[in-house]
Amino acid sequence: MKRYALKIEYDGTAYHGWQKQVECKTIQGEIELAFSKFLGYPVNISGSGRTDTGVHALGQVAHVDLEKKWLPEKIQGAMNFYLKKTAISILEVCIVDENFHSRFSAKSRIYEYKLLIRKAPLTLQKNRFWHLNRAQDLDRMEVGAKHLIGTHDFTTFRSSICQANSPIRTIDSISFKEKDLPNGRLIVIECKAKSFLHNQVRSIVGSLEKVGSHKWKPEYIKFILESKDRKKCGSLAPPQGLYLKNITYENGIFKQN
Amino acid sequence: MKRYALKIEYDGTAYHGWQKQVECKTIQGEIELAFSKFLGYPVNISGSGRTDTGVHALGQVAHVDLEKKWLPEKIQGAMNFYLKKTAISILEVCIVDENFHSRFSAKSRIYEYKLLIRKAPLTLQKNRFWHLNRAQDLDRMEVGAKHLIGTHDFTTFRSSICQANSPIRTIDSISFKEKDLPNGRLIVIECKAKSFLHNQVRSIVGSLEKVGSHKWKPEYIKFILESKDRKKCGSLAPPQGLYLKNITYENGIFKQN
Repeated sequence: MKRYALKIEYDGTAYHGWQKQVECKTIQGEIELAFSKFLGYPVNISGSGRTDTGVHALGQVAHVDLEKKWLPEKIQGAMNFYLKKTAISILEVCIVDENFHSRFSAKSRIYEYKLLIRKAPLTLQKNRFWHLNRAQDLDRMEVGAKHLIGTHDFTTFRSSICQANSPIRTIDSISFKEKDLPNGRLIVIECKAKSFLHNQVRSIVGSLEKVGSHKWKPEYIKFILESKDRKKCGSLAPPQGLYLKNITYENGIFKQN
Repeated sequence: MKRYALKIEYDGTAYHGWQKQVECKTIQGEIELAFSKFLGYPVNISGSGRTDTGVHALGQVAHVDLEKKWLPEKIQGAMNFYLKKTAISILEVCIVDENFHSRFSAKSRIYEYKLLIRKAPLTLQKNRFWHLNRAQDLDRMEVGAKHLIGTHDFTTFRSSICQANSPIRTIDSISFKEKDLPNGRLIVIECKAKSFLHNQVRSIVGSLEKVGSHKWKPEYIKFILESKDRKKCGSLAPPQGLYLKNITYENGIFKQN
């Protein structure tokens, strides 16, 4: 048996998230279907974590055990052939140690959340951004976000159906970038942590938007964090602005990591 | 009668180009349909120029004459409401002089052509870029492009069905930018002229790609230009990489111009 890691990009719009489901198109389901066409027998793949319906990935990682030894490029080429009718692309394949696990070996995960500020409806950027028609004050958002850095009980910022044993997580950084595009103002919020709770990034962004649009004071983020009350969280930011950008592993398993 | 100018963005993927056609969805057709729903009677709009099937616009301009005087924001809001199921968005509406003509008053047009260089198939950027898996040498492309700047007979670089009376056009500039994206290398080629021939930008980009990928010497561009022979042109670059970016008018009619 050889273990292979796959770096995966997808447009999540048409899928019911990562996790395999009966009677629903999912990313994991489509990749396993492509593997079965390629190999002639079914295999299971293990992802680094789930993404929700409509959430995108620039660098999701999964691993798979195959009986035969393949050149990584062969696997990549065959998989992209069988995935050609999907919105999923295998960016890279590499051979990894048998102890490697896409989920448990991860050192850190980076999510990117993209907002586009403009009045007119979106066309080319539809399903790619959270479209807001009110300006956002990034300085305020940054002040609010500082309360979330470090190790905290994130009960307020996790889905009521989150399956993690503990609500404690450590956020390494939340950074902000803004840029004028031809027809709007782009804001990118990047969150880095070893791992995240279910809906944590979308809950954080939804709450920071309340701060950026002057509905909440930046200090209110500290208050709702400490309240450990899910009901105090801002509205969940929509899935289409969220991108699983990168997962890092010890010794950087991919060429571009 | 009042004349209004509209600044329009669209994702051209699902449309048979700008120009109205019977039994085909076109951008002009969809906008005129929205106007008829808004006003209760049909109107004709005049665009600054046609775009082909699959070509996008960040700043197409059209004008329309309406009997009633409307606040421009009212027209924008109503039109975007009736266009909400389309991939077309009205970015701005303004009142213009009765002598203004979206096509004939244009001082210059800017087209942008986007290429994405990477091995893996595209997902999030599908229908938005020309996907190439071979590297491009931008220095060579720039040397090749210099032969096209200025006033020339562009017979080689226009569609055999181009309806313009003259093949003579003046290209003001062709500029190049490149940038690393998370999963690929982006190249943007910007072309500026008072007006372009049918398929001129896609013919130029298709030929420059031959130079950038070392199939042609940069000087070959001068040779094919001077040959005035359509058959010597490089393959037409695909439509999905092309964006009508901006049209400028005397006194800049829109707020952002």
